[in-house]
Amino acid sequence: MPREITSFSNETVKLIRSLRDKKTRREEGLFLAEGLRILAEARDTGQLPEIIAYSDKSPVHPLAAEIIAATEAAGGDVIVTSPDILAKMSGKDNPQAMLGAYRQPDTSIAAIDRSTSPLWLVAQALRDPGNLGTILRTGDATGAGGLILIDDCADPYSVEAVRASMGAIFTQSVATARWDEFVAWLRSGAGQLVGTSLNTDHDYLEPTYQQPCFLLIGNESQGLPAAYEAECDLLVTMPMLGRADSLNAAVAAAVMAFAVRACWRNAALPGKETT
Amino acid sequence: MPREITSFSNETVKLIRSLRDKKTRREEGLFLAEGLRILAEARDTGQLPEIIAYSDKSPVHPLAAEIIAATEAAGGDVIVTSPDILAKMSGKDNPQAMLGAYRQPDTSIAAIDRSTSPLWLVAQALRDPGNLGTILRTGDATGAGGLILIDDCADPYSVEAVRASMGAIFTQSVATARWDEFVAWLRSGAGQLVGTSLNTDHDYLEPTYQQPCFLLIGNESQGLPAAYEAECDLLVTMPMLGRADSLNAAVAAAVMAFAVRACWRNAALPGKETT
Repeated sequence: MPREITSFSNETVKLIRSLRDKKTRREEGLFLAEGLRILAEARDTGQLPEIIAYSDKSPVHPLAAEIIAATEAAGGDVIVTSPDILAKMSGKDNPQAMLGAYRQPDTSIAAIDRSTSPLWLVAQALRDPGNLGTILRTGDATGAGGLILIDDCADPYSVEAVRASMGAIFTQSVATARWDEFVAWLRSGAGQLVGTSLNTDHDYLEPTYQQPCFLLIGNESQGLPAAYEAECDLLVTMPMLGRADSLNAAVAAAVMAFAVRACWRNAALPGKETT
Repeated sequence: MPREITSFSNETVKLIRSLRDKKTRREEGLFLAEGLRILAEARDTGQLPEIIAYSDKSPVHPLAAEIIAATEAAGGDVIVTSPDILAKMSGKDNPQAMLGAYRQPDTSIAAIDRSTSPLWLVAQALRDPGNLGTILRTGDATGAGGLILIDDCADPYSVEAVRASMGAIFTQSVATARWDEFVAWLRSGAGQLVGTSLNTDHDYLEPTYQQPCFLLIGNESQGLPAAYEAECDLLVTMPMLGRADSLNAAVAAAVMAFAVRACWRNAALPGKETT
């Protein structure tokens, strides 16, 4: 049976609200996802929340009812509450009708199995959680295995990143590592490290990308440090036809990921030129 | 000589602060841009602010001094003030050291000259100002002429859109139009209208795109209305290899814009297959 919460000062209400803070997320090992669409995406990939909360003031969607029942069957904490208390939990005036608190998975680089996909995205010092979530979403669309976060990146389990990922936080592997850890791991197996750079005239459409390909995306304002570029097996550049010399980081990641996929598709078509 | 402002209740402080509201922006015909980088981009394309404000507590960068002098010479209002008052104007705790209020240009569709570029971006009911600014930035990078906004879009002159554009708000033409206005204008001249859709199996890498090409990007959650798809000369789809069926709108715009440019580059290379 769902547990009804009628008090704003309830401990679970406070806990869920505090999951907006990175420190609490880390201490509790939980993160927040909002909205039926994302919760359904999680369920479809076998992931259920430890706590689920919904409002009793709106009719419960059949899919929501399924997720609630599955969460309850798995021993999760099921909470029914008022729209106002739900709004307090989510920190938004117009909250989604449902939210869930999920266990954060292991994000050590050792947990990444590179054999599961030919394409991996790697972001360095990415500061904007919306960009980070958008890159996860692009990773899903391009069949990437996941996203490896280098140095001091935004938290992939922040509410903004989870929202921008549109559910891809549940389908993409996520790892965090220092640069030297990442390089040691990378070089312990197969893989081509590809960076985008202003310091090359190698056009991004020219190469035949290798598998697995690790696409390295630099910080929003600084790009990649020189030492990181030097470690890359391949540096490519995207033509900039206007006044600016750079793209939004999530846009650059997407253009590169689609270009790599296009290269592999062309190579697979008999009779097609593949250079 | 700069005018010194020491009062939080000064009328110009209130005016600039109120430019965060769409209603005031429309009434005053002004918009706000923040930071030396964006103000320099504006100056380099011949645009100076009507009001410029900077803090006297940090040393003035030589480039900033040039922009201040040019603004003054053009009869603009030059304001020197405290970091606290600058923070009030910008609405941020850590404001950029400089901000400018610029005149909004004419955004009627009739002001667009399609002969100036082979590529134009068109967005329909785009709600996120960050996406809108990112699309402007991508437009600059891909040599687009500008962005045409259809139906009820976010305001391209909002602080968030201007910031995400990284200066492209000053280099890209911007028009706003109802759908029927846009279609009448489009069909009065040359142009291929290209939409991305789930309702086609025409892969986005297959076509030889025509010039001028108008890339139509749909609303973030709904995509394009069926009637708008029906008006397109070409519908294409991008392969989705994961669980999701869509990309972030700014990402989709960028992948398409780079694909169109790649198509034209391939067609221009002698001996290259162009299908």
